Amino acid sequence: MSRVVALCGGVGGAKLAFGLAKLLAPEDLTLIVNTGDDFEHLGLTICPDLDTVTYTLAGLENPDTGWGRAGETWGVLQELARRGGESWFRLGDKDIAHHLTRRALLDAGRTLTAATASLTTALGVLPAVVPMANESVRTIIETEDGALAFQDYFVRRRCEPRVTGFRFEGADRACLPAEASAALEAPDLAGIILCPSNPFVSLGPMLAVPGLRESIEACSAPVIAVSPIVGGQALKGPAAKMMAELGYDVSVVGVASFYEGLIDALVIDTMDKALGESVAMKRASCFVTNTIMSNADERIALARQCLRFLDLMRD
Amino acid sequence: MSRVVALCGGVGGAKLAFGLAKLLAPEDLTLIVNTGDDFEHLGLTICPDLDTVTYTLAGLENPDTGWGRAGETWGVLQELARRGGESWFRLGDKDIAHHLTRRALLDAGRTLTAATASLTTALGVLPAVVPMANESVRTIIETEDGALAFQDYFVRRRCEPRVTGFRFEGADRACLPAEASAALEAPDLAGIILCPSNPFVSLGPMLAVPGLRESIEACSAPVIAVSPIVGGQALKGPAAKMMAELGYDVSVVGVASFYEGLIDALVIDTMDKALGESVAMKRASCFVTNTIMSNADERIALARQCLRFLDLMRD
Repeated sequence: MSRVVALCGGVGGAKLAFGLAKLLAPEDLTLIVNTGDDFEHLGLTICPDLDTVTYTLAGLENPDTGWGRAGETWGVLQELARRGGESWFRLGDKDIAHHLTRRALLDAGRTLTAATASLTTALGVLPAVVPMANESVRTIIETEDGALAFQDYFVRRRCEPRVTGFRFEGADRACLPAEASAALEAPDLAGIILCPSNPFVSLGPMLAVPGLRESIEACSAPVIAVSPIVGGQALKGPAAKMMAELGYDVSVVGVASFYEGLIDALVIDTMDKALGESVAMKRASCFVTNTIMSNADERIALARQCLRFLDLMRD
Repeated sequence: MSRVVALCGGVGGAKLAFGLAKLLAPEDLTLIVNTGDDFEHLGLTICPDLDTVTYTLAGLENPDTGWGRAGETWGVLQELARRGGESWFRLGDKDIAHHLTRRALLDAGRTLTAATASLTTALGVLPAVVPMANESVRTIIETEDGALAFQDYFVRRRCEPRVTGFRFEGADRACLPAEASAALEAPDLAGIILCPSNPFVSLGPMLAVPGLRESIEACSAPVIAVSPIVGGQALKGPAAKMMAELGYDVSVVGVASFYEGLIDALVIDTMDKALGESVAMKRASCFVTNTIMSNADERIALARQCLRFLDLMRD
């Protein structure tokens, strides 16, 4: 029992994935990654979460921004800005090299899964990084200002409009890639980990892909989620704001409600220990540990705890 | 009688176009540019001649290389090289910004003509720069080493293989853009200038587009060409080598043979004055002037001479 599947969104998911990758053999770890934020920009297919996971696993991520590469240069963007072109989405030169390589792979007829495998291999990332679908799925944020494409909401509008709901365009026609299904159905699957990513816009699009939620529910191995809410706040991004706007309790209890019926246990931070009983009312189990990952050691420590929790649940 | 159409390939054509643009009102100059060298690379549509003409008219060209931008940076290419990707075609960051902008315009459904108008306008280039076709035409160099795509021959193989002929794939299905036809058929057309570009791979693809040769032949205004061969040599590129390999006299006389039936006069350099009579045997007229354009003044001087020759022929 050694294989693990982790479902990841962006930064938080990538950090836990980094920890898992340090502990597990590459062939034992499959990362299924949200592509609902993907978008076409300047003819490039930008995959923010796939790239955050890839860059983080390669040790190339920019720790200050939560996106893009460390030591980035801005030659292309400066020229775009100078000529009055679209420069609202911050694409560095190294990042553009990555996107151009993906463009060439996709144009050559590769699936997004195959293109991602090629991109991760080129950067020395060994575990399987698998998009949730090869087909395009686009997260639409329904707000009081109308429906907004994810990047419009997230980058242009800085998550300000009040959220009323979500749509995942194309999800009904999307298929979980065979590499993801095979990992979820592996007889030696030790467990599934839902990383501390935004439940609505990182996990939500993945769970909307036909087959993924069903595979998780049907899975005999334990399924745990790490709460992205710590002390009533999101460590990064709009998760807490969205929870409040949608009427969820902005706490680990609210997270437990969201994942009810899907997970066997919620991992919460020691700071939220007092809420453990309320969480356990919604879930069979609640594990308490430090979930804040400020450095590589803490990423590995949380990954080790998650693997231990999976072991405990299987026993 | 003020409107002029110039047919341009790369560097030599761009220099004369620069001179013409300094002398003529923008609405009186239409530049029809070779796109036979265009190719797809990393998902981008690279249009070397359109871009050389655009950058030169904008005063942004790199005078040392004959391609690309002055003051270029190489962030993207360095990253591509570092990860083992395709870096044989030298794309600078400013250049990539230009290509990404074109990609976005083409993806949005613009024709290459419309995309080019947008790109030139953004860089402050006022005369009409029109591709020879909106459809893809690809120059194939037939050599003793087999058929080679233009960039393979030109960049990778450094023009070394011996040339046996040319094919212009897609030319039979290409159409001269309406903007080009309209300029060629303008009632106040003062003349047509074939710029000093490679006859085989700059002018050749253009003349293979249905309608262009016929329009030029049918044109009642004078048609002149500036010889790209000076003193038995090409100022830049493989024109002289190609002429020799294909059995042409490597001289202005050989150039006159190539254009026989198409032009009314050949403009040759003072260095080749002694060959003027032999040229005139092939052509109705031969004009002699300085055709070497080492600086902006010389570009303007040659342009002024060309306009004067057109005037003389119309009188």
